[in-house]
Amino acid sequence: MACLYVIEQGAEVTKQGNRIIVRKFGTELQSVPAFKVEQLILMGNIQITSQAIKFLLTEGIDTVFLTINGKYRGRLVSSFSKNIDLRRKQFKKLEEAAFVLDLAKKFVWGKLANYRVLLRRYQKEVQKEAVEKAIHSLRRLIEKVADAPDLDSLRGIEGSGSAIYFSALGQLFKNPEFRFEKRTRRPPRDPVNVLLSFGYTLLGNTIQSYIDLSGLDPYLGALHSPDYGRPSLALDLMEEFRPILVDTAVLRVVNTKAITMKDFYVPEDAPSLPEEGEIEDLTPEDYPILLTYEGTKKWITMYEKRLQELTFYPITEQRLSYRQICEQQVRLLIRHLKEEDIYQPFVLRM
Amino acid sequence: MACLYVIEQGAEVTKQGNRIIVRKFGTELQSVPAFKVEQLILMGNIQITSQAIKFLLTEGIDTVFLTINGKYRGRLVSSFSKNIDLRRKQFKKLEEAAFVLDLAKKFVWGKLANYRVLLRRYQKEVQKEAVEKAIHSLRRLIEKVADAPDLDSLRGIEGSGSAIYFSALGQLFKNPEFRFEKRTRRPPRDPVNVLLSFGYTLLGNTIQSYIDLSGLDPYLGALHSPDYGRPSLALDLMEEFRPILVDTAVLRVVNTKAITMKDFYVPEDAPSLPEEGEIEDLTPEDYPILLTYEGTKKWITMYEKRLQELTFYPITEQRLSYRQICEQQVRLLIRHLKEEDIYQPFVLRM
Repeated sequence: MACLYVIEQGAEVTKQGNRIIVRKFGTELQSVPAFKVEQLILMGNIQITSQAIKFLLTEGIDTVFLTINGKYRGRLVSSFSKNIDLRRKQFKKLEEAAFVLDLAKKFVWGKLANYRVLLRRYQKEVQKEAVEKAIHSLRRLIEKVADAPDLDSLRGIEGSGSAIYFSALGQLFKNPEFRFEKRTRRPPRDPVNVLLSFGYTLLGNTIQSYIDLSGLDPYLGALHSPDYGRPSLALDLMEEFRPILVDTAVLRVVNTKAITMKDFYVPEDAPSLPEEGEIEDLTPEDYPILLTYEGTKKWITMYEKRLQELTFYPITEQRLSYRQICEQQVRLLIRHLKEEDIYQPFVLRM
Repeated sequence: MACLYVIEQGAEVTKQGNRIIVRKFGTELQSVPAFKVEQLILMGNIQITSQAIKFLLTEGIDTVFLTINGKYRGRLVSSFSKNIDLRRKQFKKLEEAAFVLDLAKKFVWGKLANYRVLLRRYQKEVQKEAVEKAIHSLRRLIEKVADAPDLDSLRGIEGSGSAIYFSALGQLFKNPEFRFEKRTRRPPRDPVNVLLSFGYTLLGNTIQSYIDLSGLDPYLGALHSPDYGRPSLALDLMEEFRPILVDTAVLRVVNTKAITMKDFYVPEDAPSLPEEGEIEDLTPEDYPILLTYEGTKKWITMYEKRLQELTFYPITEQRLSYRQICEQQVRLLIRHLKEEDIYQPFVLRM
């Protein structure tokens, strides 16, 4: 286990010998040896003892505080990342316009290529004309990436690609209760969008923990321009993994009925569908629909399960888990910044 | 109150309304409105509730975990500092050799000038020849700072200045039990050195909290070269404040007998004086002499008292507390990095 989630409200995290223990009302819920845990995610109202805090800081286990709905609240750090030499390289290279454009193209290329692979894999089964068309449109867009003269036109290509992809994605769901027409966020407006948003938050945590541990500054990226409070580098590195890790897992939980409409509820004070993107700082009351506690547990389990699946990683020519591949891609980016290697997005084989 | 220390072992920090409460065995020890707290320092075995953690993260109160001996363990952060534009400026300017040398000179100049002011102030009273000589030697060294051709010779001047200053400092103590011959660290070998080391740790926390809040990267400085794990910028900014805030407070607690030899103890397993600088990762057993719990409380109180004293701050032409001046100097450095103003060290008037 690389990531330990604690979501049982009112539970307490303690330390005993070299183990992390989760208890509630005196009952032991989880007991994990520290060496198996890279990241501890505490969701909502979870107590933690000072001995556990000391232990986590000493062992260098990334500890993240989320709300029960998966919103980021903060983390425990032993210090600002110590690797200052790496950050000097990062700030030098990511101020060079040509380097930035080239790297941004790799992220967009990887995302669109994985969008296309996902559609093609599912198309074998569903055989829908709209999906076939989307696959072709994506191929044409992917060919344009290399020639994008600047970041703005590159972001235009990425936007068109996402629009094409999400309009086709709805065709791949087999449970008619889960209609998906378009991507909506802030707040997500239907069950599929709720799963997507939560999944991207989880993916963001996965990527950001490897960025933090590496010593890179998560706020300076290439495709996502630097902006106050935006973890641009984490957003960049997430792109190629979104369809592979989150969207694939959403399709699975819906199509296998691992998650059903019973795992959602409409909050009492739910507003009449707010405009998309209108609300910057969401509270649960702003969500028209939410995952139940059981649904949250299921979704986290399915996401983590996907991360633990093995696949072939061409750079090291090994079978690795997707989680390990996330870490490897951060390392590859570091070698790219140091000009020791060339970054290549991780693209699924068809 | 800007900084709330919790050192009562086994105490618990909770949140109630907008107040931070410290309790032990059900008894309320401290109760402070959150708006009065900029920084919360938890030393040793202090429990903290998840509600308090949530509250501290939301309110942006810097929360630092120290060992009972004042060693840094970690902190709670709502994110990596968000102000990426400022860090881009910092990395750009602090890669320019001429800019770095000029800024480093200001830090050294400020430190040596304040060393000299401190010696002169006390010399009025003690009238010792060795001190008089040190004051003159420091003046000659201070004149050399501007002409230093590179960082290495500048660091040489700083080293000579510190040696001259510390050899004179011993003349200023009035309590014969507190003999001070030279500065020793890792571990500090006598009571004065214990107070100095602990004081510099506290000062480091004060400065670093303003650096962290500002969004600067504490690991990239000018006088202190970037090195893995070294908070160079915090060390730079501390220089001018060391004699003013720490050394002055040490002289006071010793000369007024606010702290006496009864506030120290020799740990049971104390080694026979280890070589200075030999031990990188100190544990209490490596210290030949330590502050007692009561001594720790007294020393923190005296340090904080010094920080709250008011003095004239020439840049804004106001009377400010020394704590506010620390913050102002971080802000002045930011304007210097943005080329909106020129950094000047804060130097005490004679």
